[in-house]
Amino acid sequence: MSTSLTISLDAMGGDNAPDMVVGGIAVARERYPELKVLLYGDKAKIDPEMAKHPGLSEIVEIRHTEKAIGSDEQPAQALRRGRDSSMRLAINAVKEGEAAGVVSAGNTGALMAMAKYVLKTQSGIDRPAMVSFFPTTRGESAMLDLGANVDCDSNNLVQFAIMGAAFARIELGVERPTVGLLNIGVEDVKGNDAVKTAGQILRDGEFDFEFAGFVEGDDIGAGTVDVYVTDGFSGNVAIKTAEGIARLYTGFLNDAFRSSLISKIGYALAKPALDRLRAHMDPRAYNGAMFLGLNGVVVKSHGGTDAKGFAHAIDVAVDMIRGDFAERINTDLVRFGAAEQSNSEPVAS
Amino acid sequence: MSTSLTISLDAMGGDNAPDMVVGGIAVARERYPELKVLLYGDKAKIDPEMAKHPGLSEIVEIRHTEKAIGSDEQPAQALRRGRDSSMRLAINAVKEGEAAGVVSAGNTGALMAMAKYVLKTQSGIDRPAMVSFFPTTRGESAMLDLGANVDCDSNNLVQFAIMGAAFARIELGVERPTVGLLNIGVEDVKGNDAVKTAGQILRDGEFDFEFAGFVEGDDIGAGTVDVYVTDGFSGNVAIKTAEGIARLYTGFLNDAFRSSLISKIGYALAKPALDRLRAHMDPRAYNGAMFLGLNGVVVKSHGGTDAKGFAHAIDVAVDMIRGDFAERINTDLVRFGAAEQSNSEPVAS
Repeated sequence: MSTSLTISLDAMGGDNAPDMVVGGIAVARERYPELKVLLYGDKAKIDPEMAKHPGLSEIVEIRHTEKAIGSDEQPAQALRRGRDSSMRLAINAVKEGEAAGVVSAGNTGALMAMAKYVLKTQSGIDRPAMVSFFPTTRGESAMLDLGANVDCDSNNLVQFAIMGAAFARIELGVERPTVGLLNIGVEDVKGNDAVKTAGQILRDGEFDFEFAGFVEGDDIGAGTVDVYVTDGFSGNVAIKTAEGIARLYTGFLNDAFRSSLISKIGYALAKPALDRLRAHMDPRAYNGAMFLGLNGVVVKSHGGTDAKGFAHAIDVAVDMIRGDFAERINTDLVRFGAAEQSNSEPVAS
Repeated sequence: MSTSLTISLDAMGGDNAPDMVVGGIAVARERYPELKVLLYGDKAKIDPEMAKHPGLSEIVEIRHTEKAIGSDEQPAQALRRGRDSSMRLAINAVKEGEAAGVVSAGNTGALMAMAKYVLKTQSGIDRPAMVSFFPTTRGESAMLDLGANVDCDSNNLVQFAIMGAAFARIELGVERPTVGLLNIGVEDVKGNDAVKTAGQILRDGEFDFEFAGFVEGDDIGAGTVDVYVTDGFSGNVAIKTAEGIARLYTGFLNDAFRSSLISKIGYALAKPALDRLRAHMDPRAYNGAMFLGLNGVVVKSHGGTDAKGFAHAIDVAVDMIRGDFAERINTDLVRFGAAEQSNSEPVAS
């Protein structure tokens, strides 16, 4: 993999593509002067956007393709028919060592399927997982898996814990992150077999993170731990529930403040404080889900984001490239592998 | 089952027991003048609370027991050792036809285990489920299962849909409720096998509700459907995540409004509107989770509630007693049973 800061971008994925992609590059360039971009997509649509940012063409190489993956295309179909798509070509660039990581705001399922197919799963990991971070009372936390795997066994969950901890060290800057296993109660006897067994392995093992035991859904907003580990079904439900309730509150608040003239004056006075709250909860600041466990950095931006949000997804990719994720998880994977091996040998009790 | 409005209450369950239980009876009595209560618990602790509400002894029969189930007792242990406990005796009163329903704010797992053991599962239902309602943008919705069953097959999910719809008709007053199956995407191919098969059965069948297909976590706050159906693991995670995010927002708002003198003035002006928001989100108004699918009405109150909240749990019990839940789900269970039978016969396609 190249050590220069070259990333490949899917110019055509997302509701506001390609303008928010090009706008995102312009924002990211201010942060990373050494950035180079391989930009895959329809030149006829990209060129007018590039023209709005003078000098940007110095760091961007447009690689033209007319094909793009639709937002409702099935992963299997995208794999079969999308060989020349902007998303697939951007992933190929990582495989071929031209880029150190890829960012796309396109179809999540297609991106996961293509990235797995092209880049393959990292040694020691059975299944890649999707991770993201979100605001909490204490600051920020990460959660995985967010939907890549609906059924998970205990080994998958332990590997998610190892990968999530490395992600938190790199992205949240926590040296020894706390990791919690999502469950429906904190006692050892609670939950399904996968969760109980994974809890046992994590309690008994020695890893480069602090295992905090079982946590529950209401710990997510509280930020009780740095990393929440769960299967892709519950994780997807949890992160989307959290987003939905946040929207519910924002909507109720807006209605409350608009309900009378006095309320509007009250709002105007409290606005600076409320704006700080809004900034803390700004979904653009948390944009950038990662697929962990592949041979390469793959970041999924929210489809509905703008240039500022897309630039945040680029930040995540840059952090992961510089943080050397694969190396960081290696020690813990070896420890886990050794523990697995000793468990499968007959022991005298 | 008796048609008079006699309910049995566990006086000793909950953080503020027995005073919030006795206080809750006093509130409920104003709403239901025909109410009679069998109150199980420690007479020495109940009597001083009763003395605060003159005349309440006319409708309350105290049945003394010194035993109470601890909040951290395991369900199996509670079953074995709790035969004379206030919780168990209150459930027995329903079994024996002395009371039409029971309410307890005690240990959830113990209540579920004892109620299942004493009252048995209703005919046509494989597993009882825990259901509750919560505030949404549109009003209120219900969700089940909230944690009674960590692993669910497709038949369980279909039965939850049938029971949840009947619950919504009684508690939310919706004549033909909409029911959604919680999933990690809305397309037919998404999710695990149980969810996909249940989706197929609900799409193909004719039931006394509107099946709205798959819904996602962010539909919970939006109130897209009246009833959300899912397994007990995801349901527990979702409802607790929602509670946690609501607390996160409330905390942030309080901080924002206290951050400066100007903000405080703004808060004072906007207070009436914010108080309406708070009333809409008041957890006490949503207090009262039901165990559906047992031969009898069993309501679990939040452990930390006050008299007002406990009275709401009594409301739920009264509605369910009067709404004749068992009769309402019967037609749909027969339809589902017929569909199951025809599926298991060899058919010529």
